[in-house]
Amino acid sequence: MYSFQELSEKFNKEFDHPHFPESPNTLYAPGEYFLNIGGKRIRPVMCLLGNELFSDIHTDAYQLANAVELFHNFTLVHDDMMDAASLRRGKTTVHIKYGDNTALLVGDVMMIRAYEYIQKIQPTHLSKILQIFNSTAKEVCEGQQLDMDFEKMEKVSLDAYIEMITLKTSVLLAASLVMGAIIGGASENNCKQLYEFGKKIGIAYQIQDDYLDAFGDAALFGKEPGGDIKQNKKTFLLIHALEVANEQQKVDLYELMKSETPDKVEKVLAIFKACKVDAWAEELKAKYMNEAFAHLENIAVVEKRKQPIIDLAHYLMNRTK
Amino acid sequence: MYSFQELSEKFNKEFDHPHFPESPNTLYAPGEYFLNIGGKRIRPVMCLLGNELFSDIHTDAYQLANAVELFHNFTLVHDDMMDAASLRRGKTTVHIKYGDNTALLVGDVMMIRAYEYIQKIQPTHLSKILQIFNSTAKEVCEGQQLDMDFEKMEKVSLDAYIEMITLKTSVLLAASLVMGAIIGGASENNCKQLYEFGKKIGIAYQIQDDYLDAFGDAALFGKEPGGDIKQNKKTFLLIHALEVANEQQKVDLYELMKSETPDKVEKVLAIFKACKVDAWAEELKAKYMNEAFAHLENIAVVEKRKQPIIDLAHYLMNRTK
Repeated sequence: MYSFQELSEKFNKEFDHPHFPESPNTLYAPGEYFLNIGGKRIRPVMCLLGNELFSDIHTDAYQLANAVELFHNFTLVHDDMMDAASLRRGKTTVHIKYGDNTALLVGDVMMIRAYEYIQKIQPTHLSKILQIFNSTAKEVCEGQQLDMDFEKMEKVSLDAYIEMITLKTSVLLAASLVMGAIIGGASENNCKQLYEFGKKIGIAYQIQDDYLDAFGDAALFGKEPGGDIKQNKKTFLLIHALEVANEQQKVDLYELMKSETPDKVEKVLAIFKACKVDAWAEELKAKYMNEAFAHLENIAVVEKRKQPIIDLAHYLMNRTK
Repeated sequence: MYSFQELSEKFNKEFDHPHFPESPNTLYAPGEYFLNIGGKRIRPVMCLLGNELFSDIHTDAYQLANAVELFHNFTLVHDDMMDAASLRRGKTTVHIKYGDNTALLVGDVMMIRAYEYIQKIQPTHLSKILQIFNSTAKEVCEGQQLDMDFEKMEKVSLDAYIEMITLKTSVLLAASLVMGAIIGGASENNCKQLYEFGKKIGIAYQIQDDYLDAFGDAALFGKEPGGDIKQNKKTFLLIHALEVANEQQKVDLYELMKSETPDKVEKVLAIFKACKVDAWAEELKAKYMNEAFAHLENIAVVEKRKQPIIDLAHYLMNRTK
């Protein structure tokens, strides 16, 4: 068995090659550019971990891992266009570097490339994997649409936000584990438990994301925190603050959301702290982590096989960037 | 056996239902809107014709036909964005009606929906169909990129244009026939001949497209011809005119391409006619048609099974819009 760290290294090595043909260079060079700017590669490693939970890693798990990483990168290229983002991982985004039209096509062709990797999976598993991959892909698009819809709404409920995050982020994490598990020969019931584990981990992951963007240590975070606050993004923190704040704090928050004053981040953070949003977020994250681990416990394999997945969960939750 | 006309009617009836879930409505209503604005539905009918050439139509051919039509519509939604087109089939395009971000996601989710239809094909054929579908999808994106690259070039050779059209248009027509044929149980050699038939028909189809846009009868064409000329699109006609024109005509053509004078279309058409571009286009179309039919003759099935495909080819080549 491999540790979470070893599998990360193995995947990074395996992924480090061109994923597209050379020609037409005007389409594929921008695609390779984006795949080479890095990333945590969490989703593909989850495919390998899902397989390893039940049996030795099959070569198909690598095809699947490539597919999932290509799909994830497709969503990033198109999301960056929708968000008009100029930087991703500190590098220029595809649409800024190569123009909107090429970025649109680069995203499209990355998704197709993902399906090319799926297609290489042995026929016995192909149909089932394709079904999960398709329904997950659709849900990710639905999550992105809801995220855009929420931007136009003054208030979003916590439940609605969690539903959006589940679609936009959690289901792909959960499906990565489960598709890997199917290649590993997992039973239907074990897959169900693993899927629930992945979904809960995904929500905890997003809480950590939102938390770091507000309260992260700039030196460790790699960039100045407060990006979400500047953009008035509806995060776990803002949604909860608007729910628990007193009347004056609410008025101040809505005022700050309309303003672009230089001390906006500082002032919003002060209200967050006064509302104890930071402690609440930590508690909520712990709640989802506990629920996730309860599902993991229900999976009928010897405990030591679960260790790499437990290590992954702790890595995701304790990360500082 | 069904005639080409009967299969068109059968497909239109079969396709006439919602292809997406209801929620989120902000994503899926725009998708349904676009699928409902019509279209010739040539590609899905080619899937059925490809199947019928070899055996009675299997339900899988309808799954495939749905997939191909969804894929084609995905390319239209994204192409309309890239071309900044405001109308498609006389109706407002998705990005104009619902905004760029939604149009981007609608295209994405249409492609995923196409793969959902593919996924329903029986396991014996799934892997092969998925392989052809993927490689064709990639080629269509490559063709679109080349088309955009050509827009920035002053001169494009006829060979380069044919290569671009082959990728952007022909391969999907050819693959539609062949994937249908695979479901119908065709041999590898018959598939090869059918693929070449489809590719040649695709090029003849584009010649007809370019011809109609310049020389079409406005009353039959449904819109004023000359759209390509106004946009300086590198068509079969313009490329050939620039190859055979005398020095003065070339100077005039390049001058006209830079201008937006009200008689631009009229003047370009006069040069086209002086260069006998219309007769040349008719001849070139006939050449590709003949080559296509030679491949169809090589297909080892009784002649009467070929009649619906022959009817389709004649319909495509003699259409006035």
